[in-house]
Amino acid sequence: MNKRMIMYVIGNILVLEAILMCAPMAVSCIYRENTVRNAFLITIGITAAAGIVLYLAKPKKRIFYVKEGFAIVALSWILLSAFGALPFVISGAIPGYVDAFFETVSGFTTTGATILSEVESLGHGLLFWRSFTHWIGGMGVLVFMLLILPMAGGNSLHLLRAESTGPAAAKLVPKMRTSARILYGMYIALSVVMLILLVAGGMSLYDALIQMFGTAGTGGFSNYTESVAHFHSAYIDIVTGIFMMAFGVNFNMYFLILMKRGKSVLKNEELRWYLGIIAFAVITIGLNLRPMYDSVGESMRYSFFQVSSIITTTGFATADFNQWPEYSRMLLVVLMFIGACAGSTGGGLKISRIVLLFKSARRELRRQLHPRLVSQVHLDGKSVDENILRNINAYLAIFCMVGIGSLLLVSLDQCSFTTNFTAVVACLNNVGPGLDVVGPTGTFGGFSVLSKIVLSFDMLAGRLEFYPMLLIFAPAFWQQIQKRYRRVG
Amino acid sequence: MNKRMIMYVIGNILVLEAILMCAPMAVSCIYRENTVRNAFLITIGITAAAGIVLYLAKPKKRIFYVKEGFAIVALSWILLSAFGALPFVISGAIPGYVDAFFETVSGFTTTGATILSEVESLGHGLLFWRSFTHWIGGMGVLVFMLLILPMAGGNSLHLLRAESTGPAAAKLVPKMRTSARILYGMYIALSVVMLILLVAGGMSLYDALIQMFGTAGTGGFSNYTESVAHFHSAYIDIVTGIFMMAFGVNFNMYFLILMKRGKSVLKNEELRWYLGIIAFAVITIGLNLRPMYDSVGESMRYSFFQVSSIITTTGFATADFNQWPEYSRMLLVVLMFIGACAGSTGGGLKISRIVLLFKSARRELRRQLHPRLVSQVHLDGKSVDENILRNINAYLAIFCMVGIGSLLLVSLDQCSFTTNFTAVVACLNNVGPGLDVVGPTGTFGGFSVLSKIVLSFDMLAGRLEFYPMLLIFAPAFWQQIQKRYRRVG
Repeated sequence: MNKRMIMYVIGNILVLEAILMCAPMAVSCIYRENTVRNAFLITIGITAAAGIVLYLAKPKKRIFYVKEGFAIVALSWILLSAFGALPFVISGAIPGYVDAFFETVSGFTTTGATILSEVESLGHGLLFWRSFTHWIGGMGVLVFMLLILPMAGGNSLHLLRAESTGPAAAKLVPKMRTSARILYGMYIALSVVMLILLVAGGMSLYDALIQMFGTAGTGGFSNYTESVAHFHSAYIDIVTGIFMMAFGVNFNMYFLILMKRGKSVLKNEELRWYLGIIAFAVITIGLNLRPMYDSVGESMRYSFFQVSSIITTTGFATADFNQWPEYSRMLLVVLMFIGACAGSTGGGLKISRIVLLFKSARRELRRQLHPRLVSQVHLDGKSVDENILRNINAYLAIFCMVGIGSLLLVSLDQCSFTTNFTAVVACLNNVGPGLDVVGPTGTFGGFSVLSKIVLSFDMLAGRLEFYPMLLIFAPAFWQQIQKRYRRVG
Repeated sequence: MNKRMIMYVIGNILVLEAILMCAPMAVSCIYRENTVRNAFLITIGITAAAGIVLYLAKPKKRIFYVKEGFAIVALSWILLSAFGALPFVISGAIPGYVDAFFETVSGFTTTGATILSEVESLGHGLLFWRSFTHWIGGMGVLVFMLLILPMAGGNSLHLLRAESTGPAAAKLVPKMRTSARILYGMYIALSVVMLILLVAGGMSLYDALIQMFGTAGTGGFSNYTESVAHFHSAYIDIVTGIFMMAFGVNFNMYFLILMKRGKSVLKNEELRWYLGIIAFAVITIGLNLRPMYDSVGESMRYSFFQVSSIITTTGFATADFNQWPEYSRMLLVVLMFIGACAGSTGGGLKISRIVLLFKSARRELRRQLHPRLVSQVHLDGKSVDENILRNINAYLAIFCMVGIGSLLLVSLDQCSFTTNFTAVVACLNNVGPGLDVVGPTGTFGGFSVLSKIVLSFDMLAGRLEFYPMLLIFAPAFWQQIQKRYRRVG
């Protein structure tokens, strides 16, 4: 294993984080928050120093393989959060380090679960950083890295594969860096359009930035304890609702539209399922909520916002869905599992995985009758490789196992079954709020230190799609026994 | 499709049910319960008449294939419950037909979920029938059929495959009927030993029979509302606890012991996992419960009984585990999913499936690092066929999908999340009690008619391992389009 290369890349990432932290520091200067400004200054110093020390471990060979890719991805996300938590602790805003770490992991993984029962007192600088981590994490820090870091050609694929979301790594164009540039371009363009629309709707630039960060990263941190409900504005609800949906779509679709290949977008099966599931959920929840609101229009408005927020795993709220009737609550929990489209900034199992799980299950049912039947599973008219299907099925099994293990550990606290279950689901799928104590008006602050660590692990595991976070905890991963393979590979 | 053959076999099964109902009728005669006796008399008449009408559809060809096997299994279990529910309705003990149907499905599928809040008033005859259905269903009605019904040689395999539990149909000896006879022999022998031990412990013969039926079938219906807690006897707790465990073991193990091949029993991976999981659960729950009881011994006793009852999906209770601390509650819910060993009378996903899911997930993790790795999954030292692995993974996906669909439908009632979730889990895995309203002291009676039908479907689907119950609802299943296949097959 090329440990020097791992250190080198992570060193780069930490320096990058130190640079990115200058933005919230600037915000704290503007709002004259001196304590917070100093906290950022100290953190930037520490992070940059740590980054430079690691960076100095100049690798002899710049080559690396899948294994190094997984190690880089897992360790860099952990360290980004570990250093990113410091401003909260140093400024005294969140005194407990585990709490601050949880909050920062929640930010970078675009989960949006919070340990704070009241956020306004954090001040502008810290709230900016808290939401900015969503925006950084949304697109994947490493995709960003590909843009700026010169690395041995071709290797970057290992990083992208270890970090990319959904069943198959999206290949837009052959060249990795070009493709990263296109993705980031679209991400920034969509973000800017949303920002303009929010400011046009009467929001202050600061509020609009925070709201945009949470939406674009499908994160869900707000600078108001009440979340988006604070604004009491149908316009802001609808703009945010539509943009949450938009950031839950596979970014390839936007690329195809840019290339004037709109027809293949309309035929995309994942997108159709995504829109179909949203329509079904909005309508049935809207009807289920009808008695709670004055008109059908209003119940549909609240239904749409919450459905869009939950299926994209954003986690903003304009209503306390914990108080909704049981069908609506349950459907929202199901949407948490489903999640958004592959190749979007959203989390969850991803629509395409669900569709393929469904199709391979249906094939297995047919095989009960015709054991010698040879048939292919198709998606978008193309037959799907059996390796991908096997991988997706194993993914479901791993998901269940990690979930059950987490549930048992979290249950050592004396919270209710509903709280524990939805807390784990909301963290594993990077949603944010769950039900009961961790509902939209609740907080994760009441959990024990152990539970917070378990849930932080879940957020990272879910965001990185399990493999990197599980592999780095396997002792065999760090051993140098696969020499034969490495020479071949 | 050979519809006449389907009718013929189901006709036989209904006549058999009419004969079996003579036992509870005799019990109601002994206890001079005239209304109940008459209800049984009427039901026996109706069931026998229906059976004979179907029986008269003498098939021209006695040959049938997998498809017919699935149809026979699904329809016969539905009809057994439909007719078996009549004595409850006719006697007036359970006035609503859907309630009676739910209760009977719960009996035959060895679930043990009840809609009754108080059972003693049912009287001896009906309580006997209610528990007797556990004992009949435990071993599978169709295995029993194989013993008595002369059918075209070899075809019976299709029946057994459609009804057998666990990943691979247990093949003890080449001849199907011999193997069915051995299984039933061991089932009856274990039942008799348990009966003797219970009576020796001071139980009345009637109580002992009921307790034995519930244990052997891993069902869990009791003739006391308090369940096994009624007896306040450590002896009965321990005997029942051990026998529940014993009926959760793959019956092949007992056959191997009879054949003096005890060594291969000790090496059996599924058995080791089964005992290991039980030991882990008993100890950690016992410690978790320590503050609730006077001594470690007592908390271990209650922990052991409940763990044994839940992992084998029996559902007897000596304590209201709904009141236990959250860790214990959660672990019991996890055990509901795991279930007993394949080839036992218990339900759930089955230990061997879980072990294979775990092993294939671990292989997939390794494949992330070595994509070209070719490796086999092993169980008991033998490599497992890829078809079986694919099937098990699809099984998990189907399980999740049916579960989620049921959850949404059941959520239309206004019960709590915990109630709905554990009700579906307890029915799908044929456990019986769940948590909250459907806890050990609760009842399923409060659910709507729709929910009761959904949960009845879940009990049947879980018991028959999904394929038969899902296939008969697929329109394509009944169409005659696979002629080419049938000639080949």
